[in-house]
This record gives sequence, C-alpha cells and structure tokens, in this order.
Amino acid sequence: MAKKDKQEFVSYITPRSEDFSQWYTDVILQTGLCDYAPVRGCMIVRPYGYAIWERIQAEMDARFKAVGTENVYFPMLIPESLLLKEAEHVEGFAPEVAWVTQGGTEKLQERLAVRPTSETIFCTMFAKWTQTWRDLPMKYNQWCSVMRWEKATRPFLRTSEFLWQEGHTIHATAEEAQEETLTMLEIYREVAEDVLALPVYVGQKSEKEKFAGARATYSMEAMMQDGKALQAGTSHNFGTNFSEAYGIQFQNKEGKLQYAEETSWGVSTRLIGAIVMTHGDERGLRLPPKIAPIQAVILPIAAHKPGVTEASEKLEKELREAGIRVKLDDRDTVSAGFKFNDWELKGVPVRLEVGPRDLENGVVTVFRRDTFEKTTLPLEGLADAVKALLDDIQKELYNQAKAFRDARTVEVHNMDELAAQVEQGFAKAMWCGERACEDEIKEKFNASSRNMPFNQDEMRFGDTCVCCGKKASKVMYFAKAY
Amino acid sequence: MAKKDKQEFVSYITPRSEDFSQWYTDVILQTGLCDYAPVRGCMIVRPYGYAIWERIQAEMDARFKAVGTENVYFPMLIPESLLLKEAEHVEGFAPEVAWVTQGGTEKLQERLAVRPTSETIFCTMFAKWTQTWRDLPMKYNQWCSVMRWEKATRPFLRTSEFLWQEGHTIHATAEEAQEETLTMLEIYREVAEDVLALPVYVGQKSEKEKFAGARATYSMEAMMQDGKALQAGTSHNFGTNFSEAYGIQFQNKEGKLQYAEETSWGVSTRLIGAIVMTHGDERGLRLPPKIAPIQAVILPIAAHKPGVTEASEKLEKELREAGIRVKLDDRDTVSAGFKFNDWELKGVPVRLEVGPRDLENGVVTVFRRDTFEKTTLPLEGLADAVKALLDDIQKELYNQAKAFRDARTVEVHNMDELAAQVEQGFAKAMWCGERACEDEIKEKFNASSRNMPFNQDEMRFGDTCVCCGKKASKVMYFAKAY
Repeated sequence: MAKKDKQEFVSYITPRSEDFSQWYTDVILQTGLCDYAPVRGCMIVRPYGYAIWERIQAEMDARFKAVGTENVYFPMLIPESLLLKEAEHVEGFAPEVAWVTQGGTEKLQERLAVRPTSETIFCTMFAKWTQTWRDLPMKYNQWCSVMRWEKATRPFLRTSEFLWQEGHTIHATAEEAQEETLTMLEIYREVAEDVLALPVYVGQKSEKEKFAGARATYSMEAMMQDGKALQAGTSHNFGTNFSEAYGIQFQNKEGKLQYAEETSWGVSTRLIGAIVMTHGDERGLRLPPKIAPIQAVILPIAAHKPGVTEASEKLEKELREAGIRVKLDDRDTVSAGFKFNDWELKGVPVRLEVGPRDLENGVVTVFRRDTFEKTTLPLEGLADAVKALLDDIQKELYNQAKAFRDARTVEVHNMDELAAQVEQGFAKAMWCGERACEDEIKEKFNASSRNMPFNQDEMRFGDTCVCCGKKASKVMYFAKAY
Repeated sequence: MAKKDKQEFVSYITPRSEDFSQWYTDVILQTGLCDYAPVRGCMIVRPYGYAIWERIQAEMDARFKAVGTENVYFPMLIPESLLLKEAEHVEGFAPEVAWVTQGGTEKLQERLAVRPTSETIFCTMFAKWTQTWRDLPMKYNQWCSVMRWEKATRPFLRTSEFLWQEGHTIHATAEEAQEETLTMLEIYREVAEDVLALPVYVGQKSEKEKFAGARATYSMEAMMQDGKALQAGTSHNFGTNFSEAYGIQFQNKEGKLQYAEETSWGVSTRLIGAIVMTHGDERGLRLPPKIAPIQAVILPIAAHKPGVTEASEKLEKELREAGIRVKLDDRDTVSAGFKFNDWELKGVPVRLEVGPRDLENGVVTVFRRDTFEKTTLPLEGLADAVKALLDDIQKELYNQAKAFRDARTVEVHNMDELAAQVEQGFAKAMWCGERACEDEIKEKFNASSRNMPFNQDEMRFGDTCVCCGKKASKVMYFAKAY
C-alpha cells in the first residue's frame, strides 16, 4: 500500500505482503474480533467476533437438526479413569490436558481433566443408555468450549481454550455410521463454501494424521492467502473402537449383543481465523455477506444539512424491514473519513453514503468493500439493489478465493517440485501410503499430508510415490499447515 | 394416586404428595431431561432438557439484544491473583472454587480457578478497554457454564457445574447502572411469567443475602409446589465497588478520571427445575406451551386402518406449517397406551388422537395435558383451534401457579405465625432490617429472607419487626428455599 493509504487507516495494519502473520494479528485485534486474555494461551472473543460465531452456529445448528441431531450438554470435567480407557485416545490427548486437582478446600482423590474433547464421557453414558436396537441411532451434539494446553498459541487458530461443537453419534450398523460421518462432512463443506465463501478440499486423512482412536478421519482443508493449509473441520468414523473400550452394546433385532458403531465430528472458532486469512486484504477484513454481523452501513454525509438524517433513518428502516443487517452510523464524535476507514477495516460488505447532493438526485453513493467500486444507485428500490449486491459480493469472494486456491494447487512429481510447491500452496502428489514418506516430507519441508480426495481414480496422475518412488495408488495433498 | 393409575404409567413415579423431593428426581430422570454424570455433583442435560434450555436462551437472548446487549466469550479459567482483588467477592466464592493446578505435564506456577462467575476477568478487561466516556456503556453477556464445588447437589437446582448466562455492563453514571439493573430484572420477570408461566416476586435482597461484592442485589423468587422458594434470577448493581478494585476508569465529558458504574445479572438452568416443580403433577411434567419442545403430539390410532396414517401425516404437515411444534408418533414398537403415558409423562400440552371412527366424522380427539380434558374438534381448521388451545393452556398454567402462590403467601405478625407459615409457603413480614433477625429466623425455622417488594409503602401492614419487635419499615418475604 502507498503511504497515503496508511495515513487514512484508523489504526496501522502491517502490510499483508510484508508479514502475513503480523497482518493477521493486527486485523483480528484492531477490528475487535478478539483480544488476548490474562490467562496463558487464552483469548477473549469480543462482540464483533462472537457475532460471527453466532451466525456460524445458527447455520450449522439448523443443518444438524435437519438430519435429526439433538443438542445436549455434558460436564466439562472428566475423571482421569474415564480418559484412560481407550489407549490411542489417551496417548493423543494426555500431553495437553489441564487438570483440576482441588475442589474448594478439598484435595481430589482423582484428577479431573478439563475436557479436551468428550468422546470418553459420551461413551460412558452411551453404554448406560443403550439397551436394544430400538434405542439407536443416538445423534447428539454439544456447543461448548474445550481446553488443550498448547505451547504455541494464536487467536482463533490455536488457543488453550476454544469454542466448538462436538457431535457424537452411535448407530446399529457400520453403513449407517459411515453415512453419518460423510453427511456431517458434507454439511461442513456446504457451510464453508456456501456461507463462509471458503473453498475447501474434502477427503480422508492418512493413518498418521487421523484422530486419536478413530478408524477413519475425514477433513475439509482450506487454503490461506499465504498458501498454508488450515484444517477447517473433521468428521471421524470410530467403528466399534470406542464401543469396545467403553462397553456400548445393544441387543440387535436377532436378539444378540452387538457393539455400536460410532462417529464424532467438530468445527470450531478456527473458522473465524479462516475467514480472516482467506478474505482479508490490506485494509482489514472482508466479510462474506451471509456471515457479516453488519451487511450494510449507512453513513450520513453532512448530517446537519436538511433531509440527510431523515433520509438516512428512513433508509435504515427500509433495509432492516427487507431483512438486511444494517447499521446507521450517526456518531457525531468522529469524522466521515474515520468512519469510512473504520467500516472498511471491519469488512462490512456495503457502505451507503447519504449526502445532500445525492439526495437531490434521488440517489445514494454505494461502496462495495470487496472491489472498492463506488457507484450511485436510486433510492427507489434500494433494498432490492443492496440484496443483489450482497449476493454478488458473496459469490465474488468465493470465486476469488477459489481462483487463488486453484492457482496455488499444483501437481508435483518429485521431491524438488514438492519442496517448491509447499512454499506457495498445496502440492498434489501421488503417494505410496506409507508413514515413512509422510515423516520424511514433514522433516524436510515442514509440510504434512492434508487429505485424499474421494474421487481417487479420476484424479490419479501417475503411479509412483513422490517421495520413495515406489508404487503409489493414492492422491494426497501436502502443504504447510496451521 | 390410585393403584390403577400407577399401572398405567410408563415408569413408576413416586407420588408427589408422598415425597416431593423423590417425585422431582423421578420426573426429571424418567422424562429424559437429565441424568447423573460420572463426575461428582455434575449432571448431563439430555436432549429433552436441552431443548427447553434452548428455548429459554432464545427468549432471553432476543430481549437482551433488543436493549443493546452484545454477546461475548471469556476464558473459563481465571488466575488466582485476579480473583483476589475484590475482598468480599473472594470470600464469597473461594470456598467453592475448583482449581486447575496442572497443564499438560507442567505444574502451574499460579492456580487457575474454573470460573465460579466472571466478574473478576470482565473487570480486568473493562479496565483495559475503557478510555473515555465515548467507550461507555459496554453491555456484554455470555452463555457458558460455571463451576461451584457444592457439597449437596440436586439436578438443575444445585450442581457443581451448571449452564447460565452472565451479563456484565459498565456505565458512566450511577443512574444508568441502576436503570440497567432493573431493566434486566424486568426482562427476567417477563420471561418467567409470560413464557415459563412462573409467577415471581421481584424485589431487593437483604444485605445478608446479596451477591458477594454487590452494593444491591435484586431477585425474582418463585414458589415451588412444596411451598419453598426458588431464587430464579438475580440482577446486581455493583456501584463502583469492582471498578475501584480493578481500576476501571474513564475520562468523563469534563475531562476528569472517573470510576465506571457496573452491573451483572444472571439466570441459569435452575429455571428448568422451577418449571418442573411449579407445573408438574402426579403424571409427570406439564410444560407451558411457549417453552415445550413439542407442543402437540399426533397419535395414529389403529394405524393399519385405511386413511389413518395419511390423515395423521397430513395433519402433522398442516400444524407444522402453522408454526406449531408438532410430533407424529408413528412408532409401531409400542402400544397406544404406552404412548399416551409416555407423552403425558413428558408433559406435551396437547395430544391429538387420529382414529378411523373420528375420521369418518371429520374430527380428531383432543386431550389437554393440564386439565386431562378430552374433547373432539373438527379436522377443518384444526391448526387454529390447537393454537387457541395452546394459548389457553399457557394462561391456565400461569393462573394455577399464581393462585397456588397467592394462597400460600400470608402476612405474619409474630414468630409463631412465621414458623407456621414457612412450613407451607411464603411469610410476608415486617422486618427491622437487621441481620440479627434474619439469622435468628434462619436458625429457628431454616427460613431465609427472600426479597423486599419495590412498592414498600403500599404494602406495609404494621410497624414492628416480626422477630425483635423493634420499629420496622421494611416488608420482607421469608421462606424456606432451594
């Protein structure tokens, strides 16, 4: 950005091109999405950030319920003995558990984990509640926070505590459980792409990268503007792995005892980080209209001139009644210039400037945040025009992000190509399926396997592993990742 | 209940008149509102209970937002040093704090409290965020869980962890803070009475019973069917008490530094316990229609007969489209009698029986849960009739509860009358305002002061304290309480 632009900013944001990481931090703090908390590795989600989360929740929750999911709430504390029952799971989570050891004045006989995830306690209750095939499926979800004692943290992306939803379901058959796993993944993809304008690759994780205790993990992977991957949601099929450890048995239609098939799936406030790092620009946030807490802001220009305030208020009412999330910024304590920058920083998709000259001509000046285009539109029928504009911005943000992602996804055929490609985006590679090759790629280039697309046969573009050169039948995305 | 009735129950419920406490436990467990968790003093909120909580949240949240409240999320862990800053507050909460002392493999240098309430951490951030009068008011709320290491617990009423909302606001003037305190109390009253059908007494708590660190606490107090009080929501005015301890200062319009005035207010999943204990009867729950997850259940009778299934499905669609929360119970694995009892137990306000004979006459049989009345209504225009019926049930439940509450609220003039009255309801007494009298009443009768009505002058009915006989100018409700 030119120097002139910087001066216009409400607050100084590090140029994105100069230091992407610092740009991200500047944007999330200065837009009031969040703040650092006086607790190690934790953040505070401030009103503007929480309003986005509420919209994500509403979009997800409606879809969960539409497929028969029910919401519940389970305790945040889990006795250590429950955690210990599934070996892989414990190994995966134990190093990052926060422990309650004292309650009031009493030293506890058994340590209690602040939940890092709730499989163990859901399984305990599923075992109690499940008698016969008539009790199945149980499809539960909870919105809550979880705690993972992370060493390196960054707001929204990796914090000691974060907000998420965790779905836990049990089923009578393996087919049903697999269907559930993929149905939830598809809901995640739909919300990511259609609502958050985040293009994602969906597919299966490797054995190395799957969830601790799962038989198969599926994920959606988004690409940030620095070319790095962000795992934006996961869906796991546990088979009977946890059922066997926790004794979730039911009498099937034939009268025989059988272990239930289980899934779990989750998305978190990470999605807010993904929105920032996918759509943000030098001026700050650019929020997809469907998720923007404020879709259009009305700025009265020369509000003391006759008719300006009245017209602004009338317009606000019209847009609100048309279902647009609108805000009239009638502050008289800051300049118009300050307001322009403030709302651009906050990524409000559309700005409407209501000034005396425009009013004489029966128009308002309309600014779209995604392209910086300024135009005038007639006051008459403005609500419909704004709606159309919001739709267009939604599509445009998705298309931009997808074009970026596609351009930075490249098929690689050897380690040199892979090394170069993971510096700028996703490397699509043939892979033998062996962990040794994943480890080598990780060690050499700090890149990890992301996921394997579902339509493997169509996508295959070679038959030797990018790393070891042995026979390969799997297409895998590799990338550096958050 | 007669023996015959018991046999018809899906599960056996202890008669309410025999053992109110056991009746309560039977009802909440057998209706699937909750279950005991494998963690000391904690419960699991099951789908039916959580669906009620979601409706309470929606009703409250919309009203909070309508008065300019914004939702946020603050960390669940609070460093001990933050907790220690306000002396009264620490003293009130320290005995019931659960402490995290270990994170991963690391022993923490400072203990972290699992939040028992969040004043201390909100205050810390308010101090950071507040510069000038332009930053005020800040009106924040969070939906979360809190932890209090309680010795004796009972689901929904008192558990180690419970779900609630906590509002925290700061203001420039004492007048604004007091207005906020009472506005939120009024919202609580409105939701309690108009939505949950819980008649409540609103008023101010005594010095003894106010929140630790508050200058004034207001509450709403509901009466359960055993005559005991349940504090169903509180709203606190802190004045500058916390502001001074945490340094929340702002530059006022005159350019001088000033401490902010502060409030906090909360309601919790206790409200679900209040609904059960106010409206429930020998057959189980009776849910007010506005909060019932299912408002009407459709039972096909002799579903194999021609037309029954089709008519049931058509009716379900009609009611759903009319905005009624309806469920078609087409299970073929249980008898009609089982279904009758099951939905009565669960307190669904209206049951619609669709049978072949009724269909011939163009009617359905309608059963209302509150009065057990059975009638027939024409299929034509049934959605409107059901809506009217739901409205009527809503009113009827409130009126019943209010009549019960009013009949069991009695003015008392001496300790004998008070002693007798708190065995069956609320004692309305003149009180000198001294803690010694509250302590004596507590010790002798295990009754506590609940709150003082706002319209003290109108309500005064004597001028000597019920306990010490000295001059009294306060009307106070005393009761045994949950």
